[in-house]
Amino acid sequence: MDNTYHLEQLDRLSGLLAAASRDAAGTIRRVSVALLDVDAAAARAVLAEVAQRRTAHREIDELVPVTLVRQQPVASDLRLVLAGLRMNTDLHRMDVLAAHIAKLVLARHPEQVVPPPVRPLVGAMAETTARIADKSALCLATRDRIDALQLGLDDDELDAQYERLFGALTDAWPHGVQAAIDVAMLGRYYERFADHAVNVARRVAYLVGGDMARGVL
Amino acid sequence: MDNTYHLEQLDRLSGLLAAASRDAAGTIRRVSVALLDVDAAAARAVLAEVAQRRTAHREIDELVPVTLVRQQPVASDLRLVLAGLRMNTDLHRMDVLAAHIAKLVLARHPEQVVPPPVRPLVGAMAETTARIADKSALCLATRDRIDALQLGLDDDELDAQYERLFGALTDAWPHGVQAAIDVAMLGRYYERFADHAVNVARRVAYLVGGDMARGVL
Repeated sequence: MDNTYHLEQLDRLSGLLAAASRDAAGTIRRVSVALLDVDAAAARAVLAEVAQRRTAHREIDELVPVTLVRQQPVASDLRLVLAGLRMNTDLHRMDVLAAHIAKLVLARHPEQVVPPPVRPLVGAMAETTARIADKSALCLATRDRIDALQLGLDDDELDAQYERLFGALTDAWPHGVQAAIDVAMLGRYYERFADHAVNVARRVAYLVGGDMARGVL
Repeated sequence: MDNTYHLEQLDRLSGLLAAASRDAAGTIRRVSVALLDVDAAAARAVLAEVAQRRTAHREIDELVPVTLVRQQPVASDLRLVLAGLRMNTDLHRMDVLAAHIAKLVLARHPEQVVPPPVRPLVGAMAETTARIADKSALCLATRDRIDALQLGLDDDELDAQYERLFGALTDAWPHGVQAAIDVAMLGRYYERFADHAVNVARRVAYLVGGDMARGVL
C-alpha cells in the first residue's frame, strides 16, 4: 500500500469536512440576515448554496468506504474516517435546517416571519448559533478538544434563549397563531442546527481523545 | 482471521440493529397511546424504555470500529457495517423524538396536549408513522429492498397529513397559542421520526443494491 496515497485520501477527507463546516457557519449567518432583513434574494441565494454543497457531502460519503477498503486504517485514522461519516450527516442536517429558515422567509415574503417584539430574541439565538457553528468549524480545522468541551457553555446559553423565546409565545401573544408557530419552528431550527454543530465538535474531541464513550450517537 | 468470529460479529450487529428498530416501532405506538389517552404513567414508561435502549445503541457504536479493525470487511459486509453506524444514529434520533412526545404529555398533564377537534388528525399521523416504523423494521429484518422503495408512498401520505394538521393551525384556531405550538411540534416530531425510519429502510436498499448514490446522508 502506497503510504503517500493513504495520507492524501485522509487529508482530502479532513479538508472536505473542514470546508463543509466553515461553509455551514457562513450559511447560518447569511440566512439569519435574510430572515431579519426580510430579504427574499438573500434567502434564495442560501437555498442555492445549500443545493450546491450536496456535491461535497456526497464526495465525503463516497470517500469513506473507498478509504476503508484501500487503506484499512487503524487507530486514529480509523476514528477519523468513522467520525467523518457521522460529521457529514450532521453537516448535511445543518444545511437542511438553514434551508428550512430560507424557505420560511420565502413563504411569508413580503411579510416578515418575525414580529418586531421578538426580533431581539430571534437575533440573539441566530448570533449564538452562528458563534457555535464558527467554533465547531474551528475545532474541526485545529482538532482542539478544549474548544469542543467549552462549546457546551454556548449551547447552554442557546437553550436559555430558546426558553425565553418560547416564554413569549403564550396565550397573550398578540400576533396570531401562524406567526407564533413560525417563531417556535425558527427557534427549533436554530436549536437543532446548533446541536449538530456541537455534535461535530464532540466528534473532534472523540477523535483527539480516543474515548469510545464520547462517540456521540 | 477466524471466519466464524467474523460472521458472529456481523450477525450480532445485524441482530442489535433489527431489535433496536423493532423496539423503536413499539415505542412510537406506545407514546401515541399515552398522548391520546393523556396517560402520564404510560409516558413515563416510554421515557424509561428509551433511556434503557441507550445501552444497545452504545453497543452498536462500539461494535463498528471493532468489527472494522478485526475483520477488515469488504463489499457487502463493509456496507453493512457503515450503514449500521448511520442506522444507529437514525434509531437513536427516533427514540429522542418519541421521548419529546412523552415529555410533552407529562408537561401538560393532567391537561391534554391535543384538543379534541384535531385528535383524528394527530391520531392519523401517529398511525401512519407507526406503520412506517413497522415496515422499516421489517426491511431491516428481511433485507427487502422493494419494501424500502414502497415506504416513499407512506411517507407522502404522512406529509399530506402533516400539511392538513398545519392547515388547522390558522388564526381561526380557538384553543390558544400554546396548544397550537404543541400540536405543531407534535406534527414535526412524527414527521421527523418517520423520516429517520425511512432513512433506515433506504440504507437497507443501499445495502442490498450496493448503489453508493443511495447512501443517504
